[in-house]
Amino acid sequence: MKLYTTKNSGNGYKVALLLSMLEQPYETAIVDFPGGAHKKKPFTDLNPRSQVPVLEDAGRVLWDSSACLVYLARKHGGEQWLPADPGQMAEVMQWVALALNEIQFGLQYARGIVRGIRTGHYEEGAELGRKGLAVLERRLNGNEWLALGRPTIADVACYPYTARAPEGNIALEPYPAVQAWIKRFEALPGYFKV
Amino acid sequence: MKLYTTKNSGNGYKVALLLSMLEQPYETAIVDFPGGAHKKKPFTDLNPRSQVPVLEDAGRVLWDSSACLVYLARKHGGEQWLPADPGQMAEVMQWVALALNEIQFGLQYARGIVRGIRTGHYEEGAELGRKGLAVLERRLNGNEWLALGRPTIADVACYPYTARAPEGNIALEPYPAVQAWIKRFEALPGYFKV
Repeated sequence: MKLYTTKNSGNGYKVALLLSMLEQPYETAIVDFPGGAHKKKPFTDLNPRSQVPVLEDAGRVLWDSSACLVYLARKHGGEQWLPADPGQMAEVMQWVALALNEIQFGLQYARGIVRGIRTGHYEEGAELGRKGLAVLERRLNGNEWLALGRPTIADVACYPYTARAPEGNIALEPYPAVQAWIKRFEALPGYFKV
Repeated sequence: MKLYTTKNSGNGYKVALLLSMLEQPYETAIVDFPGGAHKKKPFTDLNPRSQVPVLEDAGRVLWDSSACLVYLARKHGGEQWLPADPGQMAEVMQWVALALNEIQFGLQYARGIVRGIRTGHYEEGAELGRKGLAVLERRLNGNEWLALGRPTIADVACYPYTARAPEGNIALEPYPAVQAWIKRFEALPGYFKV
């Protein structure tokens, strides 16, 4: 199994985290973003979106972090990380959707502007990000995990850019349940910091 | 089964389309957005994001269109719309992710500004939307459907705001394979126009 990512990609980090938590061996291919490798062949044949992560396994090529998480969870995670039951699966996937929406276009977007990784409109991103944090806080106030009462790919998908929100000048102090969840997540077996 | 939506929600439309294609009976609850019902109890107890769609079934409440599609496809769609095989499931989910990313924050966003539904930065949305259309075009050039060679929830998730792109002043003429796919989708049994 081969994971195409970059050193700083939070989306690549999600997939690397799950691989580690599942104790799956893999090799890492660092895509040369500063050199523009993501915009050229052969990488664009792997992912026409020119993004990381990409996961290659047994001749299959998958792009988008959420699809990679689904794949690994169903292939190697038994029923823990993304169960087969339709209702339980959907409960997990709604938080994966939050990661692709409020977290990506809110927290990640705002952080990208602050760190000079991207251009954009800071306040618009920050406002969406804070909406996402409010939804997380409401859920985590009284729940240890986002879905099903245990760690799932919902937590893996939401963790990186939530934990990095302060790097986008969005403080986590107003969200104590989110802060406690971040600590719980970081204590999981297989967790590693980048 | 009860679907909370609005008359014009493209995200609610996705779920209604799949319900129709699966021939599942349901009732519709129109949420009074002009009256602000989505921002108040009891709706915010169903969905703290204050958005439609929400699906209620057998005591379970699901928000986010992608989670609703996953639920219905796995519960009522056999292996057609979202198969259980990890690789095939992930192949479908990467296009669902595109719907939540380039299509929602690109095509839907740009359309929302043009139609006065939301404020924002038109060119930023339009640029992201055109990136998404280019990825769709590349895939559909030589493939009838987005994943697995047959209609899946990938197509259902991507269809509404792709078909409505011209309402956001994004022409589909440069994307002939996308235009042909829209026609194929609209010929599927159970399809209906809103």
